Amino acid sequence: MESASKEKEIMGKLVIVGSVAFDAIETPIDKTGKILGGAGTYIGLAAHQFAVDSAVVSVVGNDFPQEYIDLFSERGINTDGLEVVKDGKTFFWSGRYHNDMNSRDTLETQLNVLENFDPQVPKAYRDAEVVMLGNLHPLVQLGVIEQMTAPKLIVLDTMNFWMDNALNDLKRVITKVDVITINDEEARQLSGEHSLVKASRAIQEMGPKTVVIKKGEHGALLFQGDEMFFAPALPLEEVFDPTGAGDTFAGGFTGYLAQTEDYSFKNMKRAIIYASNLASFCVEEFGTERLQNLKKQEVKKRLKVFEKLTQFHIDLT
Amino acid sequence: MESASKEKEIMGKLVIVGSVAFDAIETPIDKTGKILGGAGTYIGLAAHQFAVDSAVVSVVGNDFPQEYIDLFSERGINTDGLEVVKDGKTFFWSGRYHNDMNSRDTLETQLNVLENFDPQVPKAYRDAEVVMLGNLHPLVQLGVIEQMTAPKLIVLDTMNFWMDNALNDLKRVITKVDVITINDEEARQLSGEHSLVKASRAIQEMGPKTVVIKKGEHGALLFQGDEMFFAPALPLEEVFDPTGAGDTFAGGFTGYLAQTEDYSFKNMKRAIIYASNLASFCVEEFGTERLQNLKKQEVKKRLKVFEKLTQFHIDLT
Repeated sequence: MESASKEKEIMGKLVIVGSVAFDAIETPIDKTGKILGGAGTYIGLAAHQFAVDSAVVSVVGNDFPQEYIDLFSERGINTDGLEVVKDGKTFFWSGRYHNDMNSRDTLETQLNVLENFDPQVPKAYRDAEVVMLGNLHPLVQLGVIEQMTAPKLIVLDTMNFWMDNALNDLKRVITKVDVITINDEEARQLSGEHSLVKASRAIQEMGPKTVVIKKGEHGALLFQGDEMFFAPALPLEEVFDPTGAGDTFAGGFTGYLAQTEDYSFKNMKRAIIYASNLASFCVEEFGTERLQNLKKQEVKKRLKVFEKLTQFHIDLT
Repeated sequence: MESASKEKEIMGKLVIVGSVAFDAIETPIDKTGKILGGAGTYIGLAAHQFAVDSAVVSVVGNDFPQEYIDLFSERGINTDGLEVVKDGKTFFWSGRYHNDMNSRDTLETQLNVLENFDPQVPKAYRDAEVVMLGNLHPLVQLGVIEQMTAPKLIVLDTMNFWMDNALNDLKRVITKVDVITINDEEARQLSGEHSLVKASRAIQEMGPKTVVIKKGEHGALLFQGDEMFFAPALPLEEVFDPTGAGDTFAGGFTGYLAQTEDYSFKNMKRAIIYASNLASFCVEEFGTERLQNLKKQEVKKRLKVFEKLTQFHIDLT
């Protein structure tokens, strides 16, 4: 921890809140046993690609292996805020993807220790500039916001489940965030607008100045006031397992912003390119496998592919 | 025609083959009576945005109003190859869009004069460098190719209908084209591959060196060998009528290439940005209304929006 403390001056701090879990995944090609999963895990591993001092705030049970906790530490993710409930079991999700890999059925969800999760941000991280609130009950997300002393950028990810079951709480917490990341169908549900341009405007009026709409294999849109930017998803030869791609996207987005400490729209454009880039790796292997061992050189090489994929010059003078 | 003849040296020639038709369109918002439609019409009106000497090769019946033929001429589209069948009726299509505007039901199709269409490219256009083969029977498309004396770029658009009903003929004609434009589902059907990267590679092996995959509101992908480029669709506040967007895209693509006479991959990237740009106007009003009166200044202004939507700078040194 000494070296982390020494580097504190040059590394932005990032607080990550999200599930740390077991997943069991079936795809048309293959299936896993219980493997490491959870939004907090994917966000943390993605943010690890940047020079950030990050901490994961979450909860696991006594069945959660020490080697997974070590994995976080080895990747520079502080686990002081990762509560281990002695007589509890870790959150478990299992799902099966359909042939097109774009839709899935949930086979089983065991909330377990997540049911009574009371997040505690470690004291040393309460002054973090960037907070990434992964998909959880809106009141848990709110509880984290209230512990922060000087946040400059609060990013919230959520899902249709909370729109169906805790809409008022969700609306309350989103008045307090700077950025919301949701998928296209959720943006339509939350706003009641089919057009994503109109949906983003309606959601901005609910609080967040910036709206990121994730469209999976069709890329992501970034909206802020009258500004609009688009990051494509990288067309891939094969999507092996889409689990965690959206969380990886969120981790890439906030990791880059925490590293650069520049929250301008111009820099957010770069951030969603990084986010799409990291998500494209995530889906190449089961679970967190690809992210765990991803090299900075691989990331940089693929950013050049993104550049070639999107950059053009037309003389408009 | 004198001025056209004078300008011939600086304007590329473009031969457009495609239906010239009547459409009747219903959307959740409104409906039309019989209006001007057809792939050849949309392609021609889109190509009119560029400095090209274009000719439409098609067929209509005696019910086709002179004012529509005048409309082509006024927009610099030569109609010497537009056959008028004295005792025939013009091709008619009617359809109804669903609420999401992404899918539609065909209510009625009357092939009429299109059934026995024998395309004749006017002599003065047989030396055109660029040929845009709109969606028609593959053997009609082949018939046009055979009349061309020195084509440098043959672009073919097609649909699942021909894959279902004339696959061998389609496969024969696509061995002779440089570029194929199809939508994502059609690319999957033609190649048997779900991944669009793999699909484009399989289709390239069938003949066309360049594959353009149109994804509607999700943009378009351009593939050539190992090169790949993506043009987003412009996110719009409202899609009023999607009819003709794909044909407008094709007309923008070939119009730009015919004007610039540069068939490199680099220039094709610009061409699909122009194509997406023009398609974004097409859907703003019923049928061809928006395209008929579209000003160059509007096109240029929206190109700047495309630039802002997609261009970023990340230092990758």
